[in-house]
Amino acid sequence: MSTEVVTNVKLKKWVEELVDFARIPNNVYDSSQIRENAMYLKRIMEEKGIHTEIIETPTNRPLVYGEMMSPNATKTILIYSHFDGVPVETENWISDPYTPTIRELLSDTLIEKLEDLSEGREVDKKALSKYRLFARSIADSKNSIIASLVALDYLREKGIELAVNVKFLFDGEEEVESPSLKDCLNKYKEKFKSDLVISASGETHQSGLPTVELGFRGILQFNIRVVTGLVDLHSGHFGNFLPNAAFQMATLIASMKHDNGMIAIKGFYDNVVPLSDTERSIINKIPRVEEELKDRFGISGAEIKGRSLQELIHLPTLNVRGISAGYVGDEARNIIPSLASAEFDVRLVKGMDPEHIYQLLKSHIMNQGWSVMEYFPTMQEIKDLDKIVVIEKKAGFPATRTSLESTTAQYVIRSVKEVFGEDVVVMPSEGGSLPLYLFEELNTPVIGLPTSNYDCNQHTHNENVRLDFYVRAIETYYSLYRNSINLNNTSY
Amino acid sequence: MSTEVVTNVKLKKWVEELVDFARIPNNVYDSSQIRENAMYLKRIMEEKGIHTEIIETPTNRPLVYGEMMSPNATKTILIYSHFDGVPVETENWISDPYTPTIRELLSDTLIEKLEDLSEGREVDKKALSKYRLFARSIADSKNSIIASLVALDYLREKGIELAVNVKFLFDGEEEVESPSLKDCLNKYKEKFKSDLVISASGETHQSGLPTVELGFRGILQFNIRVVTGLVDLHSGHFGNFLPNAAFQMATLIASMKHDNGMIAIKGFYDNVVPLSDTERSIINKIPRVEEELKDRFGISGAEIKGRSLQELIHLPTLNVRGISAGYVGDEARNIIPSLASAEFDVRLVKGMDPEHIYQLLKSHIMNQGWSVMEYFPTMQEIKDLDKIVVIEKKAGFPATRTSLESTTAQYVIRSVKEVFGEDVVVMPSEGGSLPLYLFEELNTPVIGLPTSNYDCNQHTHNENVRLDFYVRAIETYYSLYRNSINLNNTSY
Repeated sequence: MSTEVVTNVKLKKWVEELVDFARIPNNVYDSSQIRENAMYLKRIMEEKGIHTEIIETPTNRPLVYGEMMSPNATKTILIYSHFDGVPVETENWISDPYTPTIRELLSDTLIEKLEDLSEGREVDKKALSKYRLFARSIADSKNSIIASLVALDYLREKGIELAVNVKFLFDGEEEVESPSLKDCLNKYKEKFKSDLVISASGETHQSGLPTVELGFRGILQFNIRVVTGLVDLHSGHFGNFLPNAAFQMATLIASMKHDNGMIAIKGFYDNVVPLSDTERSIINKIPRVEEELKDRFGISGAEIKGRSLQELIHLPTLNVRGISAGYVGDEARNIIPSLASAEFDVRLVKGMDPEHIYQLLKSHIMNQGWSVMEYFPTMQEIKDLDKIVVIEKKAGFPATRTSLESTTAQYVIRSVKEVFGEDVVVMPSEGGSLPLYLFEELNTPVIGLPTSNYDCNQHTHNENVRLDFYVRAIETYYSLYRNSINLNNTSY
Repeated sequence: MSTEVVTNVKLKKWVEELVDFARIPNNVYDSSQIRENAMYLKRIMEEKGIHTEIIETPTNRPLVYGEMMSPNATKTILIYSHFDGVPVETENWISDPYTPTIRELLSDTLIEKLEDLSEGREVDKKALSKYRLFARSIADSKNSIIASLVALDYLREKGIELAVNVKFLFDGEEEVESPSLKDCLNKYKEKFKSDLVISASGETHQSGLPTVELGFRGILQFNIRVVTGLVDLHSGHFGNFLPNAAFQMATLIASMKHDNGMIAIKGFYDNVVPLSDTERSIINKIPRVEEELKDRFGISGAEIKGRSLQELIHLPTLNVRGISAGYVGDEARNIIPSLASAEFDVRLVKGMDPEHIYQLLKSHIMNQGWSVMEYFPTMQEIKDLDKIVVIEKKAGFPATRTSLESTTAQYVIRSVKEVFGEDVVVMPSEGGSLPLYLFEELNTPVIGLPTSNYDCNQHTHNENVRLDFYVRAIETYYSLYRNSINLNNTSY
């Protein structure tokens, strides 16, 4: 371990850089706001000596691309992150989402003077853990972007040379599934070429330890509607006659899983690439947080019992995101619902193809006697067919996973451990899904370096990043740059 | 058959009596409106020679009670109906719900002069079928009330004497489950005593034929919530870990029915009183409307196949009125729902006790390993228990059914047939539920005489009654009064 001393003057500067960026509204649905963020990034990146350009997209939400080339480099790292944010519901925030403030959690006392955080010259990093910076996108993912940039200044201050090329690709529409990214990656294949993509986004493991993610689950989203008639009918006059769409939907959903929580779709698990022995061993080293989570969220048993949360994250899921049919609560009335809707997401692990899984799902439904349609049936079809399911496929992309034994994985893990010691969480895959398969399709390994605290409230009100996590983020990128010579080293 | 000639002068008077009553707003949630209706009824009933009183209730929505005693009567008929209405959503009405207008269906042309409906002295009753009177509660049930009253005038005009006592009990809060009725019936047991209760409400059979209902299904309403945690969690980070409440609910609901639509709750059908051979034979005579209904509502197969709609109405039902969990449609998001709600109604037939059925349902759920609670669980309970169902019982009352062979049933059926011929639909029970068991508990048979057209839009916008149905209603009560001597005749 070789932690550097951080002075409160430096801390103040780092915080100011993040605050200045977080001040700029970044609603992903407002392309002019996205452009303003992009222009701001270009300016500060150029100030740091990064050759930067704005890459236009058909959605009018530009990407920001930057290069810091090193004369003798043979390897290249590309840092991918995003600067757009989900819309804010201002009324729920303690302070304005675009007026970043430092506070203790659940306190409305502002910390006006960062110098006060530490009396002496040296910041007590542990003491920083009480303080959080509140603003939209400060956790997801502006802190990661700024950390990756100021770490370059830090490196320069220390007089250390980069041994690799570093490229930056900052997305302005990640919150709406990055609709322009795929075409851009194809169009600028050479420009974006690298040996390692760092995904600079996300939350660390719930234990709070520094975290390296070697993979991301893929996803398949779809919805299903069951149609038994054109109108809801009175349950007294037509009970036993009009088939109940809510009941039919319940039967269909119930058929999809076994009692033990495992998925009953034939072939669902067939192509899953199992974890290697070493991957399994690093999973077993990750601190167990299950009991803490159960206490915190009021959860009883796990859906699939007898396995750790980490094991469960490395299995695929089939999740019902929502069901709706008829009316409940005060709205309840004596009708037979003729329409039931359900939304699903499937989390895919390495080896699973979204389209193949979608076909397996359709087969499962058909095998139970349903007529499966991809459009809303006509009145004639409703009358002629006995059990009708309308299915609609939404997003879908596969999982990624970089081998633990690879040079790239070892380089990243070592860099993090060098600063923070052996207590680093290495996850073969995180539970969430990011469309990073796009890079993997270009044969580039992708590794995630989440830097935000687990309780950062991303996507909701009072989004925040803990100051100690932010400092750790900077130190992480600093170590990555400082050790970049090792990316050439194949002896790991 | 002995149909009387109706002059257009008489028709005009009848329509005016109904229109004047339908003009008075009657939102069941506005007790002053209910009182205004009650006072109006009292006045017109007294004008017709009925001794009338207002009976106060704890809910401030009075009942109206009237008596027309006959000197030598040994039997008494009580006519029960209601004059309150469900709230109106004015914007959906073609005309103001409390400004009754006569129009053809789907036309906005008013019929200003009723005289125009018939050029000659005699009204062509068949031609009346084109015209409908639109107003809130005109179908449910103001037309029945006015018909039962003006038929008394009609009888007097013809110089015919009543052979029985006739009592009227008009409820002002039927749309909110008649909360005061039970106590009133007990309090005024002697006053309300009768040999036959006529339920003057509802829609005739879909064939449009005059209809006599010898029974009503009972009902049991309850809701169920499945709780797997205190908050919804991210489906990527916690999939396979947080049990999905929507999934658990689906499994629970699916367990309640067999694939053939029959209910899988143990003991559910045990106490059902089967239809007698004669009841079965009158069911078989009822016109089959299944194909017409399927065309009209876009329905494929019946939930329980191979039986007529009439047979299905004489079986109990278990209906899911609604399900809700998580989010669907534009609101859909990647969460695991920790709460799922479902609303149910059970239609009970003769022999079934609502409380007993409720206990069977709870046993069914418990037998599948659920912890069944009647309150929302504490955080500790959610953590300690594996599968939690919160169940809440709502309304519940048993079915009624008067024997086809009884004097009362035969008297009513004969009275109707005398005017309209043999083509009368006699239903051992209708599909809907009315709390008429309260009368049956007083050992009084209850028979329903629905008078509104099947497409009357009761409870929704553009509620209407067809003019020919209204005239038929008056003729029905007229025949009932004229034949009242037969109620003493036990030789039917």
